[in-house]
Order: sequence, then structure tokens, then C-alpha cells
Amino acid sequence: MEKVILDLIEQLEYLPGIGPKAAQRITYYLLNTSKGKVSALLQAIAFAKDNIQFCQNCGNYTVSKLCSICTNPIRNKSLICIIEQPKDIIGLEASGKYNGLYLVLGGQISPLDNIGPNDLRINLLLHRVQTDNISEIIIATNLNLEGELTANYIKDKLANSKSNNHFKITRIASGLPAGSDIEFADEITLGRALDYRTEI
Amino acid sequence: MEKVILDLIEQLEYLPGIGPKAAQRITYYLLNTSKGKVSALLQAIAFAKDNIQFCQNCGNYTVSKLCSICTNPIRNKSLICIIEQPKDIIGLEASGKYNGLYLVLGGQISPLDNIGPNDLRINLLLHRVQTDNISEIIIATNLNLEGELTANYIKDKLANSKSNNHFKITRIASGLPAGSDIEFADEITLGRALDYRTEI
Repeated sequence: MEKVILDLIEQLEYLPGIGPKAAQRITYYLLNTSKGKVSALLQAIAFAKDNIQFCQNCGNYTVSKLCSICTNPIRNKSLICIIEQPKDIIGLEASGKYNGLYLVLGGQISPLDNIGPNDLRINLLLHRVQTDNISEIIIATNLNLEGELTANYIKDKLANSKSNNHFKITRIASGLPAGSDIEFADEITLGRALDYRTEI
Repeated sequence: MEKVILDLIEQLEYLPGIGPKAAQRITYYLLNTSKGKVSALLQAIAFAKDNIQFCQNCGNYTVSKLCSICTNPIRNKSLICIIEQPKDIIGLEASGKYNGLYLVLGGQISPLDNIGPNDLRINLLLHRVQTDNISEIIIATNLNLEGELTANYIKDKLANSKSNNHFKITRIASGLPAGSDIEFADEITLGRALDYRTEI
């Protein structure tokens, strides 16, 4: 195969979820498609990459200083939901159950990867706790080891922060996923589902 | 979500095999990746798109006038394998069973899509039949209705061409795919597998 084609396939294989076959398929699609369509794709990538920055209030992706959630007047500004990545917002928004603001940490505390608390937006969080009128902080870091470690670290930091506000600190629930079979659930999930059972 | 992100997701969804979820995943990967890596991808696409042209001898993708197969001195130049698309070459090369040249039609005769013989590289084929010293032409168009129609049309054209050479015209075999179960084969494939059975 021509080197220029092999180079393109290789570049496409770096994308998440794109294996050699998919990269080949996309390559031949791109070669076979009108220049206009390919330009539109290239411009969309370049434009997003050049213009996207982090919201100064929450760390979400935005093209302005503040993101569309932080500037939305109908959001409840007394709630902060702490998440690891901007993409975590999508599912939480899609649930339709949350109307507050976010705080995007930018990762999780991970000693193995050399990521400590100072690499995350914890100071921004502590600043908002001092200046905003907060009623509740929901910690929605991942349910894995590092996510739990990060949640515990933040809980302690918040508990020790000298804020004049009284706010609740909560953690998103752990339990069985909707639509799942008890048969296939792992024992830790089942243990938590029992621990946190609710009266019906 | 920010419009610039939605635009990028939409552009990525045009790629083959990329649904909304995959497009979202790639978008967040691109936003989260170094500018250098994203530039490399954009440049690979733009470079391929700007430099790839069709081989003047066979219609394959190339950066020169002639593709790497047509200019390869160890290929058997008396064989032509007729295919529909440049990507069909990949599998035939991977089989390790073919060492001749190709002729890429650029599609298949498809009255419903308004694609007739004049939209394909049939004149280039007839020209090569006159000028090259051909011993065999293998028709490897797809095994679907339009591919068979195209194969028949080309067979008739070749048979009527006033070439001084005597060459065989063959069609790739139809039958059961390797590793398949007879139980799950469709009746047309089974019928062909019986029609073209070989002595062992």
C-alpha cells in the first residue's frame, strides 16, 4: 500500500475505539469523499482544538471564559457536583436529575500516575466554597479505587475548610446498574447494594 | 453542550462505523489530547487528500502517475484482475495468491444509481487489452446483483474486442466462505457451492 495511506491509517488508529480495520475503512472513506466534506471535518477538529478552553468557574470545556452551564440563569447555583472529566457532564445532564453547577477536577488522585491533589482543581473548589452560597456538594468521582480515594480526600478537605456556609457533602449512590441481573453482579457491588438498601 | 463540540461530534458521525457514542468519545479524546498529536492526524488526512490521485494504468490510489503495483518489476504483467474499488486490493494482496496487475473500475454498473458502463474504467481496460500482452483477465467484481451484471457486461465487451491476443476470461469462485457452517449458508450460495464443486 502507498506510504501516505499507511500513515493515515496509523494516525487514525490512535483514536479511541478505532482498530486497524476501522482505520482502513475510514481512510478509504476519506479518500473517496468530496474535498468539501473532508475539509468540513478538518475544520471542525481544528476549530474546536483552537477555541476550546476551560471554564474559569468549573473547568468544563467552553469557548468563552465561562461555560454555558455556569452562565445559565436557571441553574441552581447552590449545588456543586464534583466530577473528574468534562465528558462526565453528558450522562449527568442526560439523566435529567441535576440542575446545579459542576466542578471538573481534571482527573483523579493517582499516586501510580504521579497525579496528586495539586494537579486537580481542588483549590478552585475551596475558593468557590468560600465565595459562593453553597447548600450541597455532590462528589461524583468514579467508583473505582482512585475515584474513591479522591472522593475521600475532597470530603476531608471540605470538612476542614473554614467556610461560613453550612453545606451537605454527599456521594453518588453505589449499587446495581439499572436493568442488570443480580446473577452477574460482582460481590463488591452486591455488598454495597445491600449496605445502602432503601425502604420502599 | 457547547456548539463547537456538537459540530465536531456531528462531523465525526459522517465517518463509516462511527455512531453518536463513538463520535462523542473521539471528540473528547481530541479535546483532551496534545495539539501536536491532533495536528499529526489533521496533516495526515490533508496530505493524503491533497496528494492521492488515480494510477493512470489501473485506477488504484497513488501519489505518482503510476501506483506501486503497476511499477513493481516482479509483478506478472500478463494478468489483470478487475475490481470495483481500490480497497478491494487489500484483501486480494493479503491472500498471497495473486501476483498480477489490477484494473480498478471505480464502481459497478447500477442503473438505479444512474451508473452506467461509461462511468467506469472500461475504456482503460479495453485499451490495455490492445496494448499489453495479456494472458488472463480475472473478473473480481462483487458477488451481488450489480457486481454480476458488471462482470457479464465486461465479459461480453472483452469477448467482442478485436484483440490480437488470446487471453482467458475468468471469474473469482463463488461458494461457502472459509470457516462457515453449511447450516447457516443461504440457498443461493449453497447452490453455487454445489454447481462449482471440485474433485478432491
